[in-house]
Amino acid sequence: MAQYLTGDNAAIDAFLDQFDVFLLDCDGVIWSGDHVFPGVPETLEYLRSKGKKTVFVTNNSTKSRQEYLTKFTSKGIKSDVEEIFGSAYSSAIYISRILKLPPGKNKVFVVGESGIENELRSENVPFIGGTDPAFRRDITPEDFKGLADGTLLDPEVGVVLAGLDFHINYLKLSHAFQYLRRGAVFLATNVDSTFPMSHGFFPGAGSISFPLNYMTGTTPVALGKPSQAMMDAIEGKFHFDRKRTCMIGDRLNTDIKFGIEGKLGGTLAVLTGVHQKADWEAEDAVAVPAFYVDKLSDLRGLAN
Amino acid sequence: MAQYLTGDNAAIDAFLDQFDVFLLDCDGVIWSGDHVFPGVPETLEYLRSKGKKTVFVTNNSTKSRQEYLTKFTSKGIKSDVEEIFGSAYSSAIYISRILKLPPGKNKVFVVGESGIENELRSENVPFIGGTDPAFRRDITPEDFKGLADGTLLDPEVGVVLAGLDFHINYLKLSHAFQYLRRGAVFLATNVDSTFPMSHGFFPGAGSISFPLNYMTGTTPVALGKPSQAMMDAIEGKFHFDRKRTCMIGDRLNTDIKFGIEGKLGGTLAVLTGVHQKADWEAEDAVAVPAFYVDKLSDLRGLAN
Repeated sequence: MAQYLTGDNAAIDAFLDQFDVFLLDCDGVIWSGDHVFPGVPETLEYLRSKGKKTVFVTNNSTKSRQEYLTKFTSKGIKSDVEEIFGSAYSSAIYISRILKLPPGKNKVFVVGESGIENELRSENVPFIGGTDPAFRRDITPEDFKGLADGTLLDPEVGVVLAGLDFHINYLKLSHAFQYLRRGAVFLATNVDSTFPMSHGFFPGAGSISFPLNYMTGTTPVALGKPSQAMMDAIEGKFHFDRKRTCMIGDRLNTDIKFGIEGKLGGTLAVLTGVHQKADWEAEDAVAVPAFYVDKLSDLRGLAN
Repeated sequence: MAQYLTGDNAAIDAFLDQFDVFLLDCDGVIWSGDHVFPGVPETLEYLRSKGKKTVFVTNNSTKSRQEYLTKFTSKGIKSDVEEIFGSAYSSAIYISRILKLPPGKNKVFVVGESGIENELRSENVPFIGGTDPAFRRDITPEDFKGLADGTLLDPEVGVVLAGLDFHINYLKLSHAFQYLRRGAVFLATNVDSTFPMSHGFFPGAGSISFPLNYMTGTTPVALGKPSQAMMDAIEGKFHFDRKRTCMIGDRLNTDIKFGIEGKLGGTLAVLTGVHQKADWEAEDAVAVPAFYVDKLSDLRGLAN
């Protein structure tokens, strides 16, 4: 059963004492789109003032770590590129350091935004697609022909990497499908079904890759939460004590599951995002958090 | 076990004698995209010369019956609008005659091409979306806001109808998702995973609706094959004897299943499309045809 902390200062202090490191999801925890939840910057400062390390772990691949840092700074949240982990970065690391494809077959066809491209560049991974205007247009009869006979395909593509793409179209889906049919490795930055924005929900990265699952009958290796590839990447950088680490997030199937499967000391759910109390109290709940608060700023307790 | 007819004239004659009506799939049977398979027009004439009735039953919703007729004529195939059944038509019939939504909540948000729009018009069903240029653009910050708070949504929309859309984009998916979240009925013209074109395969209608399944956790009522709603619509028009009717197609999960579940007298698979012999010989085959030929024109036998 999840322990409710909001308004209970003794419980909050006991909770904080258990952990040295907090892994924090961003969308639905820190902000919704461009709207930072009230009291969040002060809460992060409060945690740091108590000697806690904060690490931001987000499945949103539309921004690179550098772009996230710019957003944090513009929202009055102090951070450092080294404490930001996005699924685009996680994907780039996986491709460059784990897949290690041979030259001549190591190009990535990107379905996604600039965040993915920037992280691939930082790992010197060659890619096509992405934000290239050549792929942001309607499909033509020549495309159908050249994709079907392969003459329009780049023989060096060995990976299809799909993430959230606000410019998804039939031409990109068709390219990705043809590469997958020809044996490209299928990766997804993450497979979140929805994406929180403007206090509402919109199609998530999983909604971009899912048609490709359906067409090919295969599922991608997903590099975002709850994939432990992301946990390993974080640990590779910080060597933290998992038992003294807590994952904070709004989604049971990504954040809370990520913390539990990573054998962290704790998980904390916030109710400012996708999932609510009823979701983990349901019989078929995908994961149950150890603690929960109404909103992140409740962790400041009396200081609130 | 499926009986192989190619090259066996006695078997072909016996096969033809069993049926008065042939329901024919189009993509992968008659043509692939704009390419009509050799000998097909002559084969259709041959069947008609033997007194057989031919009915075209297609899941492709991008064209209306009238547009199909134009295509048939341009390819040298005689036909009539009354013997063409498309999933767009089947969907329009379902909305107007079965759903019968109340005025003020009877508008359809269309994700798809003009074929759907034309059939909805023919049934006097009001709709928005579709090929409207207002929806063929990138999503903006104003869209995110107006979709999240509902101010950009049409309160009269009571149905989301998704079909193959060569102009699919994030804006349309976002609109469809918001309408579904608000209780709109979820329909799909069909849920084919792929679409045959230019001797290759491309994303099918199911690849358009599947992200919406994933986001909403619900599946659409699909009006194309193998849905028996389409069989009922055909029978409503022709009053044929199901036992003297054979379904001819290339897909086990749509065409062959459609014929078997419709309790037709027979099913015939052709190998010019998606599925091959190994697919129905697999242990988990979704459906097994009664007969098969390499290609439709093999039915002409010696006359070939």
